[in-house]
Amino acid sequence: MNYIDAYKNKRVLITGGLGFLGSNLAEALLDTAKEIILYDALIPMYGGNLFNIQNFKDKVSVIIADTRDAEKMNEAVKGVDFIFNIAGQVSHVDSMIDPFYDMDINCRGNLVLLEACKKHNKDAKIIYAGTRGQYGKLDYIPVDEKHKMEPTDIYGVNKMAAEHYHLIYSKAFDMWACSLRINNTYGPRHQMKHGKYGILNWFIRLALDNGVIKVFGDGAQLRDYNYVDDVTRAFLLTGSDDKCRNQVYNLGSGKQIKFIDLVKDVLNAAGSGSYEQIPWPKDREVIEIGDYVADFSKIKNELGWEPKVFMEEGLKKTCDYYKKYKSEYWDWHQSCKI
Amino acid sequence: MNYIDAYKNKRVLITGGLGFLGSNLAEALLDTAKEIILYDALIPMYGGNLFNIQNFKDKVSVIIADTRDAEKMNEAVKGVDFIFNIAGQVSHVDSMIDPFYDMDINCRGNLVLLEACKKHNKDAKIIYAGTRGQYGKLDYIPVDEKHKMEPTDIYGVNKMAAEHYHLIYSKAFDMWACSLRINNTYGPRHQMKHGKYGILNWFIRLALDNGVIKVFGDGAQLRDYNYVDDVTRAFLLTGSDDKCRNQVYNLGSGKQIKFIDLVKDVLNAAGSGSYEQIPWPKDREVIEIGDYVADFSKIKNELGWEPKVFMEEGLKKTCDYYKKYKSEYWDWHQSCKI
Repeated sequence: MNYIDAYKNKRVLITGGLGFLGSNLAEALLDTAKEIILYDALIPMYGGNLFNIQNFKDKVSVIIADTRDAEKMNEAVKGVDFIFNIAGQVSHVDSMIDPFYDMDINCRGNLVLLEACKKHNKDAKIIYAGTRGQYGKLDYIPVDEKHKMEPTDIYGVNKMAAEHYHLIYSKAFDMWACSLRINNTYGPRHQMKHGKYGILNWFIRLALDNGVIKVFGDGAQLRDYNYVDDVTRAFLLTGSDDKCRNQVYNLGSGKQIKFIDLVKDVLNAAGSGSYEQIPWPKDREVIEIGDYVADFSKIKNELGWEPKVFMEEGLKKTCDYYKKYKSEYWDWHQSCKI
Repeated sequence: MNYIDAYKNKRVLITGGLGFLGSNLAEALLDTAKEIILYDALIPMYGGNLFNIQNFKDKVSVIIADTRDAEKMNEAVKGVDFIFNIAGQVSHVDSMIDPFYDMDINCRGNLVLLEACKKHNKDAKIIYAGTRGQYGKLDYIPVDEKHKMEPTDIYGVNKMAAEHYHLIYSKAFDMWACSLRINNTYGPRHQMKHGKYGILNWFIRLALDNGVIKVFGDGAQLRDYNYVDDVTRAFLLTGSDDKCRNQVYNLGSGKQIKFIDLVKDVLNAAGSGSYEQIPWPKDREVIEIGDYVADFSKIKNELGWEPKVFMEEGLKKTCDYYKKYKSEYWDWHQSCKI
């Protein structure tokens, strides 16, 4: 059975559904799912953007609500078969400035969802968007799922705590949850208003605007990027297979790249822009994790997942998308248009 | 220099200061510290009990306040040299029933303290009371500090998150924190109103009341207990030595014991009571961690700590204490007397 068939005639809830990962996932399910419900708070600086669903807005339901709103969440989870739980505060730096806000969204918001499911829908399969940030500085690369988790920022701690919440609820209350520890991801539909989440997309904006990309230090740290379509497929694969219950999976590209080379690739793909190297700012240096390369052999061996879109192709697609739809992503107020 | 000299003429703040660990720690500092401030919310079912400081109440300051009260916390941390951060929700089972409350105290309460120190006293040395519950089911015994942390309950997740908060603040904001991952601890001044925290002390009450101790399953799981005086010394040692900054340390007894044999030791020490074996209740079984034996060689090698009071002596001292002061601990309302 093809993994997409698991979603045939099913009801799917996506938190953060108007954001980057959520809206790409929604699009991938349009021809298969019976109902797609996008739950998103459209918090101004965050990734939610109604333009992300412009081409298929009549085929999905949208709930504008915060994950921390228990009343709305209780209603939203009723009767759904799958929940892709992607909503969150995603800025490393912001989590260090306002740790309470990060905790409230990334810990409490996830508990609200889990409690809603425990009370109203224990059968829903929940796929949680974890993050590479949970590992912190690596003892070895490539990092596998057994590597200890010692995040360097509050965001990483809270994302890790929420992953544990999911697995504990799944085990203790006979529910179904798994976690994808997502790599750096880039591609169409990412917010482009600032560089606090998803630096690669921000660099694409700078390059397209013929701007100067600032590289901290020597840029020799290794990074590992996935194109969004590959991440979407990983979400759908893990939700489709019962052996994923209580499991965690890394994603990765298999093609580690030096940060500085990535910048050069971006400039090539955009056909404009330049870069300069500057010293590490203090607030970034203290939470910087050094080299990051993921071992994704677990998901490859168990589910047959591997990335299909590599940097050159992915960057071209991304640049093409934003050249076409720049006006929908560059403006600070764009995402809140209803 | 003796470790106690590090506290000479110093100001010491103890959160959870009217509880089991906090009040024993306060007593140990009476002859040395310049000022001892006990910060405690006296939440009814928790461990705070004013009788715990009956013998030295004129030598300490008491602030009755919740760690989540930022205004009171901001004032409390000003000018102190050491903070033993012990306050918390400590019931595994309760954390599964009301995860929001556990998160609010064990995550947010600790962030309130750390933010207070970041803003008003970055020089305070903070010693956090972590827990063996952070590890979850063990891959190997004895468990050392490098063992991965995969808690089986929400309490364990939130205690672990707060330990990370401490270490992240310490590293990112030039502060000073360390964590003791405390073993099961028993001894005088523990609350005796219910068995949800510290099962060994609860068994001591049952035995002293000539009651029946219920042992779940075969009782063959291994446990590792420390007498409170040894834990107090560990706190004082870690706070006294600058090499402990950003470090975590396990405590342990070096004398693992089967749960069932522990029960027999309690009955012997009390000279009364009996036990029966019953099947595991579902709510306990799902969060049960199996064998737990700690490797405490790190604190032994680095600080020379090792336990000095073993089970027979410790149980005798504990039974003697509660025989004498039973009326101050058995009553549900006793702890709130002011």
